[in-house]
Amino acid sequence: MTVASHTLDELRKDVALALGDVRAATPLVGSITNAITMDFVANAQLAAGGSAAMIYLPEEGVAMAAASGALYLNLGALLPLHRDSIPAAARACHDLGRPWVLDPVGIGIGSLREDILSELRACKPTIVRGNASEVIALARAWGLDDGPEQGGEVRGVDATDPVAAASRAAAALARWTGGAVAVSGPEDLVTDGRVAVSVTGGSPLMSRVTGFGCSLGGVLAVFAAVADPLTAAVAGTACYAAAGTRAAEGAQGPASFKVAFLDALYNLDAAALAAVPLTIEEA
Amino acid sequence: MTVASHTLDELRKDVALALGDVRAATPLVGSITNAITMDFVANAQLAAGGSAAMIYLPEEGVAMAAASGALYLNLGALLPLHRDSIPAAARACHDLGRPWVLDPVGIGIGSLREDILSELRACKPTIVRGNASEVIALARAWGLDDGPEQGGEVRGVDATDPVAAASRAAAALARWTGGAVAVSGPEDLVTDGRVAVSVTGGSPLMSRVTGFGCSLGGVLAVFAAVADPLTAAVAGTACYAAAGTRAAEGAQGPASFKVAFLDALYNLDAAALAAVPLTIEEA
Amino acid sequence: MTVASHTLDELRKDVALALGDVRAATPLVGSITNAITMDFVANAQLAAGGSAAMIYLPEEGVAMAAASGALYLNLGALLPLHRDSIPAAARACHDLGRPWVLDPVGIGIGSLREDILSELRACKPTIVRGNASEVIALARAWGLDDGPEQGGEVRGVDATDPVAAASRAAAALARWTGGAVAVSGPEDLVTDGRVAVSVTGGSPLMSRVTGFGCSLGGVLAVFAAVADPLTAAVAGTACYAAAGTRAAEGAQGPASFKVAFLDALYNLDAAALAAVPLTIEEA
Repeated sequence: MTVASHTLDELRKDVALALGDVRAATPLVGSITNAITMDFVANAQLAAGGSAAMIYLPEEGVAMAAASGALYLNLGALLPLHRDSIPAAARACHDLGRPWVLDPVGIGIGSLREDILSELRACKPTIVRGNASEVIALARAWGLDDGPEQGGEVRGVDATDPVAAASRAAAALARWTGGAVAVSGPEDLVTDGRVAVSVTGGSPLMSRVTGFGCSLGGVLAVFAAVADPLTAAVAGTACYAAAGTRAAEGAQGPASFKVAFLDALYNLDAAALAAVPLTIEEA
Repeated sequence: MTVASHTLDELRKDVALALGDVRAATPLVGSITNAITMDFVANAQLAAGGSAAMIYLPEEGVAMAAASGALYLNLGALLPLHRDSIPAAARACHDLGRPWVLDPVGIGIGSLREDILSELRACKPTIVRGNASEVIALARAWGLDDGPEQGGEVRGVDATDPVAAASRAAAALARWTGGAVAVSGPEDLVTDGRVAVSVTGGSPLMSRVTGFGCSLGGVLAVFAAVADPLTAAVAGTACYAAAGTRAAEGAQGPASFKVAFLDALYNLDAAALAAVPLTIEEA
Repeated sequence: MTVASHTLDELRKDVALALGDVRAATPLVGSITNAITMDFVANAQLAAGGSAAMIYLPEEGVAMAAASGALYLNLGALLPLHRDSIPAAARACHDLGRPWVLDPVGIGIGSLREDILSELRACKPTIVRGNASEVIALARAWGLDDGPEQGGEVRGVDATDPVAAASRAAAALARWTGGAVAVSGPEDLVTDGRVAVSVTGGSPLMSRVTGFGCSLGGVLAVFAAVADPLTAAVAGTACYAAAGTRAAEGAQGPASFKVAFLDALYNLDAAALAAVPLTIEEA
């Protein structure tokens, strides 16, 4: 497909520029995220080239929306105060035109999460990141998937659907938000509702370490501070693919893999990013 | 002792089966635990072969009791909401016949912890895990130790008593719950109130890294999802002994030891588990 | 300067004694700190030779003030309950004459942090630790800097001022508290309001890992449990400089650097500590 081939070249160029811009600007990203993976999210954001600040309080979410290049909002392991702080931060981003990334971890568990998610619909996240089941469940919760109901069952934090099963839901979400959706899995899918980009790389060890999904979401926000949604989502996802492939080479197990991954993310250069296999097609 | 020797062979066989079952089933375990060690607990549960989900809210504790193979409830660094969420999760487990592991971290500090622990008595934890002082203090708090009061003074999160000093309290607790008790120390003690199993291995570096006790508790819950209480408690404890011994071989200090430990836990095979020195005697 | 040269020799002797005393006593330090870096703070305190206990609740803060050798109070990522627990713990330390370390992370963000800080003024922290902008902002917030207003703008958790710009503010703070102030940066500054000690070492990688500042604050509290404020602040800072320099030698990136750092902190001996370049002058 000539159009898509052309678009792929352009996308690769934009992705390379985004990496350079992150390294040059060290964008500040505020995050409201679960306590389990806060350390990993912050260290991944720093390794990718950003600056990280984690918060809980509603007033701080609003302040960080104003002070940051982008926000990262993650729904794992909620506390009662997240009922106020996450929607307030999302609304502030929406009103300021500030990019923000939504990670609907745990969707389907509990009424607090359901209430928060229903408020976030109108705030239109710049990027949604999740596994296939989370993306399917979010499109359904927001009434964007008009097909027959199937999939979207989350098992704790694990997907029960393959990435390909979420392609229609991801495109519907992206069309609603006007942004991008990144579906994480053995092969990642990124879409803006017009094109669907497939990103290959990483390692099965990523699913044996807690927080790879969350930390990717945090890194997508770093890129969203300097690039358009599709470019940012592909750039962050491709960084994870490249660093994950590299880290798996010498790893003895999940913990040495995590250490090698963060080192590889920090050392990632344009050549390694350009070597990540990407394909593009119409969504 | 013929009986005990026979039981030891049976126990070794059950432990080997439990490891295989965990690897085959990837049991989901929900945890309510302190923020300090959440990352380590989750990564240890994943390395051992389970799936991990951490929660704070009462409604999520009840939902996870229904969705999980077992729960892990840890009393370190309490927040006010734990007053509701920990007893609610324990009660749900008790009512559903779902295994759950209690880690009475910080026992003796504060009235909130005292209130929670008094509610947990009737929910009869499948496995109790603690250091010697915590186990002595718990048996006393639950009125199960009718001897003269001695020991059980916790210094922050550290034991002030040797493991052997907790053998009577551990057996009394196990007889009350009908489950097992694992006392962590230089040499670990596991009992179901009838037999006392001693597990040798590990490394003194385990006490120079935060969360080794908590993460063991989380791994015991992974095994409790597939095996009876005594088998689960011995299996998890023996995995820690084997992986700890292995990790100490190349470690340069506590942080490289932790990395090597999680890698070793992930790579642990039946032969390494079978090589852990165990002894068994009547409790 | 004869006086200062003499003082430098004395200081080096006191610092060496403090390291020995920490290793001999394993002082228990209670901490109220943010969830992002709790794991790193605890592991650094353990590696340095202390024992760590993290808490959230007001009643536990007061209990830990009584039970600990010193407390560490950090204002990052506040929860509503910190409005009570941090001032209560500081007041308990003040009333008991117990050393405590203040880390004013995020100063300038939000009214909750402002309210807490205004209450802490009268509790006179034994050691204040922060980056240059945080120290300038704290001196201003407490009305201790009578010069023309400049600097003190914090960008998330990052400094926007060089260490030298905070020398007057640091000295003013130390004179108010009667303790010491440690300003972290490429070259660290420690002062008790009479002398200013410069500590050289570490690595730029320290700013690419979350929590190096927080964990240093936690380690300063370990030293404050056994030594006077200036000695404790110089000793902890010099340990970080020595371990950071050592860790940078073989590190492949920020994550392997963090692992090597904690190992180096654990293995640090008197000779390595004595080799850290120090200079002293009048404040």
